[in-house]
Amino acid sequence: MKNEISPKLTLVGAGPGDPDLITVKGLLALQSADIVLYDALVNPELLQRVPLGVKKVYVGKRKNRHTYTQDQINALIVDFAFTYGHVVRLKGGDPFVFGRGQEEILYARNFNVETEYIPGISSSIAVPGLQGIPVTHRGTSESFWVITGTTSTGKLSSDIKLAAQSTATVVILMGVSKLKEIVSIFRDHDRQDTGVAIIQNGSLPTENVAIGTIDTIIEIAQSEGIGAPAIIVIGDVVKSHTDFPASLAEWHYLLN
Amino acid sequence: MKNEISPKLTLVGAGPGDPDLITVKGLLALQSADIVLYDALVNPELLQRVPLGVKKVYVGKRKNRHTYTQDQINALIVDFAFTYGHVVRLKGGDPFVFGRGQEEILYARNFNVETEYIPGISSSIAVPGLQGIPVTHRGTSESFWVITGTTSTGKLSSDIKLAAQSTATVVILMGVSKLKEIVSIFRDHDRQDTGVAIIQNGSLPTENVAIGTIDTIIEIAQSEGIGAPAIIVIGDVVKSHTDFPASLAEWHYLLN
Repeated sequence: MKNEISPKLTLVGAGPGDPDLITVKGLLALQSADIVLYDALVNPELLQRVPLGVKKVYVGKRKNRHTYTQDQINALIVDFAFTYGHVVRLKGGDPFVFGRGQEEILYARNFNVETEYIPGISSSIAVPGLQGIPVTHRGTSESFWVITGTTSTGKLSSDIKLAAQSTATVVILMGVSKLKEIVSIFRDHDRQDTGVAIIQNGSLPTENVAIGTIDTIIEIAQSEGIGAPAIIVIGDVVKSHTDFPASLAEWHYLLN
Repeated sequence: MKNEISPKLTLVGAGPGDPDLITVKGLLALQSADIVLYDALVNPELLQRVPLGVKKVYVGKRKNRHTYTQDQINALIVDFAFTYGHVVRLKGGDPFVFGRGQEEILYARNFNVETEYIPGISSSIAVPGLQGIPVTHRGTSESFWVITGTTSTGKLSSDIKLAAQSTATVVILMGVSKLKEIVSIFRDHDRQDTGVAIIQNGSLPTENVAIGTIDTIIEIAQSEGIGAPAIIVIGDVVKSHTDFPASLAEWHYLLN
């Protein structure tokens, strides 16, 4: 009965990995879905919270699996909204932090599909936090700048140069393959001693972390075997990490 | 029986206001609390989810109510942890985004109190998003910079000048009282036509919003009667808001 269907798209942020880091509202949306489209970075445990009989479709963009382009995903969303009704689009982190969420919303609206956004815990803040690294800390960092390492042109963002001149904690997502280039920009601005953390698989049991400074991080990341997907955090807030060479006492001293 | 108490501090992010925007993990922590310390920005509905008989203590820093200094809050946390056991410290947004969460964690650790951090939905990302303004959008903004308008020195952060030269979406928390100064910095960098949104009481039924450009926002904010607490968003992602003078069609044109 096509006329009983109310086509709707709800973007839901799944959070950084731990399935309990979805919001209550996001979980309620999953439970009212008529179909779920999910990404590579979504924890499979979350899919078990979708009611039995509700179709779950993988539309991730990882290598070695069947992939959809963004245009195909947009078209699927609209097609499914008119066929099934409530489409829940489950994305890692927050849908508006490099998640291409707005592209899906604008596309769906063109077809008069109702849209809703349910925020998710962004890895940019929570993954450092879960490692004991606060993105802000009074007296150390009073701003944080979240930058993608992989822009739409494939190049490193020119913002990294400004970031190296700022007092911000700099959080770079999808940037591990450009680590050398990033380190070199910070060196050029005399930031050799600034703390750096690289965190892979944040919030999951497989979490792996490298802690150092601009001067030492490349070597440390290699010896820890850090790979993508990972988050790079640059700033002296990293010095509160227990693995940081300075003792916690020194860190206190730095702050007070 | 003092020796049965396991002193523990859990920092829980309550999210931007809507009580369903707490995480599942945060809600579980509230339900296992022996005592809850909460801030001004926490929705009272969340407190109703704390089990009956569990003490809830307001430690906010708003005007016109009894206030605690940060030192007093730190001391209360440790005192309560040894008296009651599991202290849940419920904070608006995320505890590490200008929440002074790390200060509480470091203080508690000094007394060997176990600590845990449960991230919250940060207003910096979600409040713009719920207004239809994505902090990132491919081709428009590939980074976002979150800055406090009220630094520990009381002055506007010098980072605002760098931000005005960047391509980042700039999100300023606690900055409404410094709006004129912020606007003037962006004017100095020829940013008159950049979109600006100011959102008060984001995610709540009392939400109020002003949408304009660097050139027009002061007048519009006055006529809309926007006051604190509010979030300022500066960047062309604001142009996707339905109240923005350019039509949605033009916005599409800008992007594609």
